[in-house]
Amino acid sequence: MVRDREQAIFEAAIKLGALYHQWVGTPISRASAASIETAIERAVILQPFVEEITVLLDRDRMTENTFGYSELSGLMFNVEIITRVGFSYCKARLATEGGYPLMKIVECHDIPSVPRH
Amino acid sequence: MVRDREQAIFEAAIKLGALYHQWVGTPISRASAASIETAIERAVILQPFVEEITVLLDRDRMTENTFGYSELSGLMFNVEIITRVGFSYCKARLATEGGYPLMKIVECHDIPSVPRH
Amino acid sequence: MVRDREQAIFEAAIKLGALYHQWVGTPISRASAASIETAIERAVILQPFVEEITVLLDRDRMTENTFGYSELSGLMFNVEIITRVGFSYCKARLATEGGYPLMKIVECHDIPSVPRH
Amino acid sequence: MVRDREQAIFEAAIKLGALYHQWVGTPISRASAASIETAIERAVILQPFVEEITVLLDRDRMTENTFGYSELSGLMFNVEIITRVGFSYCKARLATEGGYPLMKIVECHDIPSVPRH
Repeated sequence: MVRDREQAIFEAAIKLGALYHQWVGTPISRASAASIETAIERAVILQPFVEEITVLLDRDRMTENTFGYSELSGLMFNVEIITRVGFSYCKARLATEGGYPLMKIVECHDIPSVPRH
Repeated sequence: MVRDREQAIFEAAIKLGALYHQWVGTPISRASAASIETAIERAVILQPFVEEITVLLDRDRMTENTFGYSELSGLMFNVEIITRVGFSYCKARLATEGGYPLMKIVECHDIPSVPRH
Repeated sequence: MVRDREQAIFEAAIKLGALYHQWVGTPISRASAASIETAIERAVILQPFVEEITVLLDRDRMTENTFGYSELSGLMFNVEIITRVGFSYCKARLATEGGYPLMKIVECHDIPSVPRH
Repeated sequence: MVRDREQAIFEAAIKLGALYHQWVGTPISRASAASIETAIERAVILQPFVEEITVLLDRDRMTENTFGYSELSGLMFNVEIITRVGFSYCKARLATEGGYPLMKIVECHDIPSVPRH
């Protein structure tokens, strides 16, 4: 009843919601940001239906507190994920828009089935 | 380009992924479970496009550790959410299936637009 | 080798560090704040050596985003905890100082053992 | 009023409680475990008073679910941290004992002040 395309959308959104709330609040600095990006990517790629995931954390927002570090906040995320269910792909994104860490569907594609003779 | 129905699916999944990773690991007992259920419901209902959310945590899985409490685990969740975008509704669920805390689309409905005379 | 007083300090700090990172990022509003306060208190009181816990979340910092809610941030916490190990008590606090969510020991007390005749 | 040694104990415990609840629930596998270990270490070392931190996650507990991965659970942690406040050091540990992820003080040392002539 659920189309592959819809399921691919569903799966992409689960992962975006999940990673956001798993990682928000992590102590972070410009020097350590790459290790957090890698860890998030390697965690998300394990999950079902994930084809690609790229995480870029905005160093410009990593302003130091009294003790010289920041906390990973929603506005730092720049994430792109591609999920696949059957022959349908969904690309979705988490990025700051209008001061809010917005998750949205970027595009979906269905690979047309090849007619058999 | 994205249909309302697809957007409703996307929004439901974000919330399920988010709440799972926000609350997993919380110390919990049968006596405190209701307060956690309420807190999750009141947090999720704040988020955009959420129409309804019910959270039931499985007391039977709250086996006590040495110190007399449990940790909220994925297998304890029984969550149903309804999102709405435009005139499309999506009901989705997080519940244990086959020993795994599965998130899935339960059903979607589009309210047909009424012809105007 | 570890004195009761030191162990009470250790236990208080574990709980402050834990609750901070468990709950940061939760969607919250002035209307839902009380339910989160209650949930945190009921979760923390379950843990070993905790005698008292009070959580007050700063409503003034709950400024609404585009969608009309906030996220629980470190600066919103005002938490006081009392732990006891043997006859030693430790009161510790998490509160904003100098723009930083600081955890500190407030005071410790050892109840003198009563001489027996 | 608080001795350096007590403050060092307090700081070590904050970090153990914090990292536990920050990372519990993260999707993980034997292949990705090293990236999570590194990310945790680089996050914790940023925090005040931390001198050393080593994180070892127990691969043997990473049993695969239906989808071929695990979730980081409390029982997987093997963490040792050293904090310093003034001339006092505290070494503390998070490791499984009796089926429970126990945090405890391992040892504390105060470097005696050198008499000046």
